[in-house]
Amino acid sequence: MIAEKMYELGTKKSTIRTIFEFGRKRAAEVGEENIYDFSLGNPNVPSPECVKQAVFDILNEMEPCAVHGYTVAPGDPAVRESLAASLNTRFGTKFSGKNLFMTAGAAAAITITFKALSEAEDEFITFAPFFPEYRCFVESTGAKLIVVPARTVDFQIDFAAFADLLTPHTKAVIVNSPNNRSGSVYSEATIRKLTALLEEKEREYGHPIFLISDEPYREIAYDGIDVPYLTKYYNNTIVCYSYSKSLSLPGERIGYIVVPDEIIDFGRVYGAIAGAGRVLTHVNAPSLFQRVIARCADETSDLAFYEKNGKLLYNGLIAAGFTCVKPQGAFYLFPKALEEDDYAFCERAKKYDLLLVPGTDFGCPGYFRAAYCIKTETIERSLPLFKKLAAEYNI
Amino acid sequence: MIAEKMYELGTKKSTIRTIFEFGRKRAAEVGEENIYDFSLGNPNVPSPECVKQAVFDILNEMEPCAVHGYTVAPGDPAVRESLAASLNTRFGTKFSGKNLFMTAGAAAAITITFKALSEAEDEFITFAPFFPEYRCFVESTGAKLIVVPARTVDFQIDFAAFADLLTPHTKAVIVNSPNNRSGSVYSEATIRKLTALLEEKEREYGHPIFLISDEPYREIAYDGIDVPYLTKYYNNTIVCYSYSKSLSLPGERIGYIVVPDEIIDFGRVYGAIAGAGRVLTHVNAPSLFQRVIARCADETSDLAFYEKNGKLLYNGLIAAGFTCVKPQGAFYLFPKALEEDDYAFCERAKKYDLLLVPGTDFGCPGYFRAAYCIKTETIERSLPLFKKLAAEYNI
Repeated sequence: MIAEKMYELGTKKSTIRTIFEFGRKRAAEVGEENIYDFSLGNPNVPSPECVKQAVFDILNEMEPCAVHGYTVAPGDPAVRESLAASLNTRFGTKFSGKNLFMTAGAAAAITITFKALSEAEDEFITFAPFFPEYRCFVESTGAKLIVVPARTVDFQIDFAAFADLLTPHTKAVIVNSPNNRSGSVYSEATIRKLTALLEEKEREYGHPIFLISDEPYREIAYDGIDVPYLTKYYNNTIVCYSYSKSLSLPGERIGYIVVPDEIIDFGRVYGAIAGAGRVLTHVNAPSLFQRVIARCADETSDLAFYEKNGKLLYNGLIAAGFTCVKPQGAFYLFPKALEEDDYAFCERAKKYDLLLVPGTDFGCPGYFRAAYCIKTETIERSLPLFKKLAAEYNI
Repeated sequence: MIAEKMYELGTKKSTIRTIFEFGRKRAAEVGEENIYDFSLGNPNVPSPECVKQAVFDILNEMEPCAVHGYTVAPGDPAVRESLAASLNTRFGTKFSGKNLFMTAGAAAAITITFKALSEAEDEFITFAPFFPEYRCFVESTGAKLIVVPARTVDFQIDFAAFADLLTPHTKAVIVNSPNNRSGSVYSEATIRKLTALLEEKEREYGHPIFLISDEPYREIAYDGIDVPYLTKYYNNTIVCYSYSKSLSLPGERIGYIVVPDEIIDFGRVYGAIAGAGRVLTHVNAPSLFQRVIARCADETSDLAFYEKNGKLLYNGLIAAGFTCVKPQGAFYLFPKALEEDDYAFCERAKKYDLLLVPGTDFGCPGYFRAAYCIKTETIERSLPLFKKLAAEYNI
């Protein structure tokens, strides 16, 4: 009667959703302030004032039909030129507007890219811990998602494991740095080793392997750490970006795809992206917010807030006896669970109303994710509870 | 290397696009004012003042994280309640928020619906003249689009032809009234005959046949004509709506799907819609504009402008000797071409810089489409040219 697969995808409750609902129920029982919900990765820093000002200015300056009308499918040409100029200034790239394709956020950007590239028997590789939606998005194009196990010592790449998984079917490799899950940033050394291996395999297989950089957390990187811009390291790179985190606009669905001139066949890749956008009915990225981000391209929300939170939680967990890689960006810690079974560990944490997500959900058992895009004060008050939890394990 | 089908869909130039580009070239040669571009269906009436006011009020009243944050996938619950209440007042329906699923416009709404319903060997039926993107959207789900030839005398339904095309594979029937192409509105008699036939076939085949009402032009109907609200006539109806025309917001991508309680299995249909939205990466409909339309749900742009234009063009064409069904809504006329070959006719019209779209593109050869969402003055100045064109055919 209906598409069973769609029903399943639309109704199966994710672990995060289940935890969130548990949190709501507990909040009603014991009060909002006694719930320590580290489960959701929603930006909690307000958009900068320039966003509001840009909206007001645009509506005051432009005719409604111009603001709210269709743009061409790849996005308003002037907007794309502005964003390309901003990228060039910040990252030393040489893009022009034609290299950008505006999208409804990074989810649309990556799915459009997957669909544009995917052919029969293709494999897309990514690295644990990973965004579980990758599986849904890759599989919906008919391709397979292959997951490289995590290198838990620092959440860089386990190259031996990765090399074993590359095959002539490998269409693309998906990286996400700064990483949603581990909070790590791929170093330049990692990127150089990765791109050298991909170039070697491209020669060996006689076909391109695309490097898809899913990078909505690009601007959230700590201690001045460098987040390499991947088109400068590897020709067949496609960048998928979103303003959800940098300008705290996740609900507005605005981002872009970059297809650099250096890619193997620019016209064919860009054309396929346009076709995939059409089939996925992303007619154009929301028109007002295309103009808003063009005016705010060099601005961000107060991202230092996340750095402060990350260090507070990291130091607290280390003091409580946890093992955890130091956060380098995004707004997540990915500590080792205090028992092998991360589900059992997260269940036990619930006793203290500490809501954590088991790493198994992200392809990395024995760990858990703590999203710290929450009130600083909540983190402060959670630390004694993490200590109590650790004490249960005699740590 | 890439998905060939996506490349093809992303780069094949449509007839309308080709005509539009010809118009731009001619405008550079002879001046904008001497081009009579009836090819594009873009609303040209500004959004009502309430849209701007709503944006300002929302940004002044609400916290940025609340305005721009993710909403739940089906859309903000309060927004859906407001829209349901507005529908109930205007159309005597009994919806609540849970019957609505907010989408990025009608294109997303129909594609999500197609994908939610589509199973192996399914057929979706629609009526010429039709929106050519239906083919792309339906085929992308793996189903087939079946087109019922036009009933050109009044652009109601040719029931004999329709009945012949219904089969046990028929999953759904897509109607679009007021019609983008013909400008006709299905009468209540047509709707009653259609739904009686569908009910009969449901019994005969032993499975539901969904009626998908793609109705972005609902509010553009002339002379007070009634546009029946289809959930009141047929249980297995799904309504796909957009604010692109009523509030002139096509670039903002905002609309919704209605799944009525009366549908055969509400939970399964709504769940599959959620899954299809997820796979097509419509994470949530743009969050600011969800709130904007909730505040403007009972308002419209100055839609009387289209009625005035439609009558002016219709009377002019009739006076020039054309045959044309009187416009009832939307912003299109669909007259008979003055020779059998509508492509040749539209080519000849170009001599006068009259840019028209051949009906063959919409499954209705021998006719042409004239979109009159343009300046009234342009229509006035075009009428003598239509006369000259008709004179070439000795009319």
